[in-house]
Amino acid sequence: MEMTMGLIAIGMGLAIGLGALGVGIGQGIATGHATEAMARQPELVGTIRTTFIIGLAFMEAAVIYALLIAFMLFGKIG
Amino acid sequence: MEMTMGLIAIGMGLAIGLGALGVGIGQGIATGHATEAMARQPELVGTIRTTFIIGLAFMEAAVIYALLIAFMLFGKIG
Amino acid sequence: MEMTMGLIAIGMGLAIGLGALGVGIGQGIATGHATEAMARQPELVGTIRTTFIIGLAFMEAAVIYALLIAFMLFGKIG
Amino acid sequence: MEMTMGLIAIGMGLAIGLGALGVGIGQGIATGHATEAMARQPELVGTIRTTFIIGLAFMEAAVIYALLIAFMLFGKIG
Amino acid sequence: MEMTMGLIAIGMGLAIGLGALGVGIGQGIATGHATEAMARQPELVGTIRTTFIIGLAFMEAAVIYALLIAFMLFGKIG
Amino acid sequence: MEMTMGLIAIGMGLAIGLGALGVGIGQGIATGHATEAMARQPELVGTIRTTFIIGLAFMEAAVIYALLIAFMLFGKIG
Amino acid sequence: MEMTMGLIAIGMGLAIGLGALGVGIGQGIATGHATEAMARQPELVGTIRTTFIIGLAFMEAAVIYALLIAFMLFGKIG
Amino acid sequence: MEMTMGLIAIGMGLAIGLGALGVGIGQGIATGHATEAMARQPELVGTIRTTFIIGLAFMEAAVIYALLIAFMLFGKIG
Amino acid sequence: MEMTMGLIAIGMGLAIGLGALGVGIGQGIATGHATEAMARQPELVGTIRTTFIIGLAFMEAAVIYALLIAFMLFGKIG
Amino acid sequence: MEMTMGLIAIGMGLAIGLGALGVGIGQGIATGHATEAMARQPELVGTIRTTFIIGLAFMEAAVIYALLIAFMLFGKIG
Amino acid sequence: MEMTMGLIAIGMGLAIGLGALGVGIGQGIATGHATEAMARQPELVGTIRTTFIIGLAFMEAAVIYALLIAFMLFGKIG
Amino acid sequence: MEMTMGLIAIGMGLAIGLGALGVGIGQGIATGHATEAMARQPELVGTIRTTFIIGLAFMEAAVIYALLIAFMLFGKIG
Amino acid sequence: MEMTMGLIAIGMGLAIGLGALGVGIGQGIATGHATEAMARQPELVGTIRTTFIIGLAFMEAAVIYALLIAFMLFGKIG
Amino acid sequence: MEMTMGLIAIGMGLAIGLGALGVGIGQGIATGHATEAMARQPELVGTIRTTFIIGLAFMEAAVIYALLIAFMLFGKIG
Repeated sequence: MEMTMGLIAIGMGLAIGLGALGVGIGQGIATGHATEAMARQPELVGTIRTTFIIGLAFMEAAVIYALLIAFMLFGKIG
Repeated sequence: MEMTMGLIAIGMGLAIGLGALGVGIGQGIATGHATEAMARQPELVGTIRTTFIIGLAFMEAAVIYALLIAFMLFGKIG
Repeated sequence: MEMTMGLIAIGMGLAIGLGALGVGIGQGIATGHATEAMARQPELVGTIRTTFIIGLAFMEAAVIYALLIAFMLFGKIG
Repeated sequence: MEMTMGLIAIGMGLAIGLGALGVGIGQGIATGHATEAMARQPELVGTIRTTFIIGLAFMEAAVIYALLIAFMLFGKIG
Repeated sequence: MEMTMGLIAIGMGLAIGLGALGVGIGQGIATGHATEAMARQPELVGTIRTTFIIGLAFMEAAVIYALLIAFMLFGKIG
Repeated sequence: MEMTMGLIAIGMGLAIGLGALGVGIGQGIATGHATEAMARQPELVGTIRTTFIIGLAFMEAAVIYALLIAFMLFGKIG
Repeated sequence: MEMTMGLIAIGMGLAIGLGALGVGIGQGIATGHATEAMARQPELVGTIRTTFIIGLAFMEAAVIYALLIAFMLFGKIG
Repeated sequence: MEMTMGLIAIGMGLAIGLGALGVGIGQGIATGHATEAMARQPELVGTIRTTFIIGLAFMEAAVIYALLIAFMLFGKIG
Repeated sequence: MEMTMGLIAIGMGLAIGLGALGVGIGQGIATGHATEAMARQPELVGTIRTTFIIGLAFMEAAVIYALLIAFMLFGKIG
Repeated sequence: MEMTMGLIAIGMGLAIGLGALGVGIGQGIATGHATEAMARQPELVGTIRTTFIIGLAFMEAAVIYALLIAFMLFGKIG
Repeated sequence: MEMTMGLIAIGMGLAIGLGALGVGIGQGIATGHATEAMARQPELVGTIRTTFIIGLAFMEAAVIYALLIAFMLFGKIG
Repeated sequence: MEMTMGLIAIGMGLAIGLGALGVGIGQGIATGHATEAMARQPELVGTIRTTFIIGLAFMEAAVIYALLIAFMLFGKIG
Repeated sequence: MEMTMGLIAIGMGLAIGLGALGVGIGQGIATGHATEAMARQPELVGTIRTTFIIGLAFMEAAVIYALLIAFMLFGKIG
Repeated sequence: MEMTMGLIAIGMGLAIGLGALGVGIGQGIATGHATEAMARQPELVGTIRTTFIIGLAFMEAAVIYALLIAFMLFGKIG
């Protein structure tokens, strides 16, 4: 049970770490381009923000899945 | 059974971690360009959003597959 | 049988993880450029969307192959 | 026979995982540029789509080869 | 219990380290583009800042998840 | 003979996996630029497509070599 | 207790090292674009600086989290 | 003789895999730019194609060398 | 105590090495863009330099945190 | 003599694999830019091609060196 | 004491090697952009050089920290 | 003497492989830009070619050094 | 003393290898941009060269530090 | 003495391999930009070439340092 707990912890670290890495970069790109799109077309601000929020939500879902797996693995450690 | 549980956990971490990494970056690129496309052609907002949602759905499918594999592997740990 | 199960799980994680990583980024690039192409040529929206869906389908096929391998490997764990 | 099965599974994972990674990114680039090319030259849509499909088919062949190797390796596991 | 504590610590390091890596780069891209967007459209400063803060908050959430996992793992070390 | 089979399988996975990775990205770049070249010079479509096919064939040869090595290694497993 | 201390130290190194790596690059991108944004719109200098400071603060938070984890791990070494 | 065969197989996989990876990307870049060059200067199509074929041949030579090494190593396995 | 000292030293190397890597690249990007921003808007030199110094200070803080962790680990070696 | 043969084979694979990787990408960049240069200055085709061939020859020399080392190592295997 | 000395040496190598890697690239970017900024605004040469020297000094500080850690570790070897 | 020969061979492979990788990419960039420079300024062809040859010679020197080290190591194998 | 000498040698290789890697790329970027800056503002050649030499000197210092560490480690081998 | 010789050889390979990798890429970037700078300002050819040679010399120094370390390590093998 010793060794196993350690390896599960590394699995949890990889899951949430790599997930947050990708989603962080992705949301950064999305935020950056969305603000520039607003600056280019001020009368579309509402529409662009809606699209942007949809994108963020989908990305957040990806990191939530990684978090979910990490939680499930955590339940096996204790 | 000790060592195995740990290695399965690492496999789960790699699956959902790498999956969320790629899908996060991909959805970020898609969101960014879609908002800029809307800013450039305001009268096409509906069409672009539909295309954008289709793309997000396909990408989300990829991370869902990774989640599915992680769930299946989890069933073998307990 | 102990060690083997763990290594098969890592193999499954690599297969679906790397596959979803590449397909996620690829579909993100495709979605982004397709929406910009629509914004540039509004009267071609239908044609561009068809091409875009063809591309998505081919990419989805690649991740499905990875999923298939992961499923087949899963059958050897139990 | 224990250890071997595990290593073969990792070999399968690398084959289809790396293959899908590269082909996914490649097809994404191809789809993106092809849709932009259509937007720039509407009267050439048919020609561009044919070229695009040829490219997709060649790329799909690469991932099919990887799938083939994975299938062949799978036959050695059982 | 010896070896396990060390591996859990590495798991914690990967989780928060990779998470902060991705979120740091992402927030940097977002900040950079948001300031440029403001410079291009001064009368939209408030709207752009709101969008920018939403993006930052979502990204911060990703690193908070990684922090949460690290905290939970820490509770298993002591 | 146990260990050897596993290592040969990993060698096969690296050969076809890395090969398909590079050729997939390369053919994607080639397809993307070729379609854009057609859009820019419609009266040269035939010439460009011939050049494009030559390029694809050379790239496909590279992945075929990798496949060949994988087949030859497979013959040593059984 | 010997081996564990060493592994915890590596975990601390990964946490703060990767965290500082990402935040360093991110803050560099943010600083660079913010100064260019000021040069482009001199009458918005105050607004841009505020936005820039908000971004820096969020990024600094990410590296502080990594530092926090490293401190907590350090408490387990002694 | 057991272990050796496996390591030689990994050496073959690295040789042809990395070789095909680089040559695949290189030929893709060459094909893409050559088609664009043709589109820009239609009356030079023959000259450009000759140059392009020379480049492809040199690159193919590089992957052939890798193939040769893989063949020579294969002769040591049996 | 033997092995532990060595692993702590590697942890210190990773901490300060990765930290200096990221902060070095980040400060280089910041310096480069700041000098170009000055060249574009000479009458804002003071303001831009202040912003630039703020950015440098935040980045320097990140590497100082890494240095701090390395110092703390050093205290455990002797 | 067993283990040694395997490690030498991996050394050969790294030598020719990495060499072909770099030279393949390099020759691809050279071919692409050379064809574009011809398209821009048709009356200089002969001069550009000579320069291009010189570049290819130097690059081919690099991969030939790697091949030479691989051959020399091969002589030690048998 | 044998193994420890070796691992400390690797830690020193990582510290100064990664530090010099990042600072070298960063200072190169800074130097390149600073010279271009001077060329664009000749009457600001003094101001730009001061800013550039400040940036270099901060970066040099980062590599000095890495050097400091390496020196401190060296004191533990002898 | 067994193990040593193998490790020396890997050292030789890394030396010439990484060296040829970097020099191959570098010479490719140099060749590409030099041909474009010629196309832009035809009356400077001789001068540009001289500069280009100087650059190639320096780069070739780098790979020759790597070859030299590989030769020297080879002398220790036999 | 056996194992230690080998590990110290690897530490020296990492120090000078990674250092020369980063400084080589950095100085290449600096040289390239400095020559372009001269071409753009011929009457500033002296000033730009001074700035460029300062940058080179700082970068050279970074690699000298790495060399220094390698020398110090070498003194521990003999 | 067996194991040590092998590890020293790997250290030499890393030193000269990574050094030649970075310097090769750096000199390629420098050569490419210098030739383009000449093409843009023909009357400055002498000045640009001097600057370019200075840059090459500094970079060559970096790889010479790596060569020096490799030579010194070689003296410890025999």
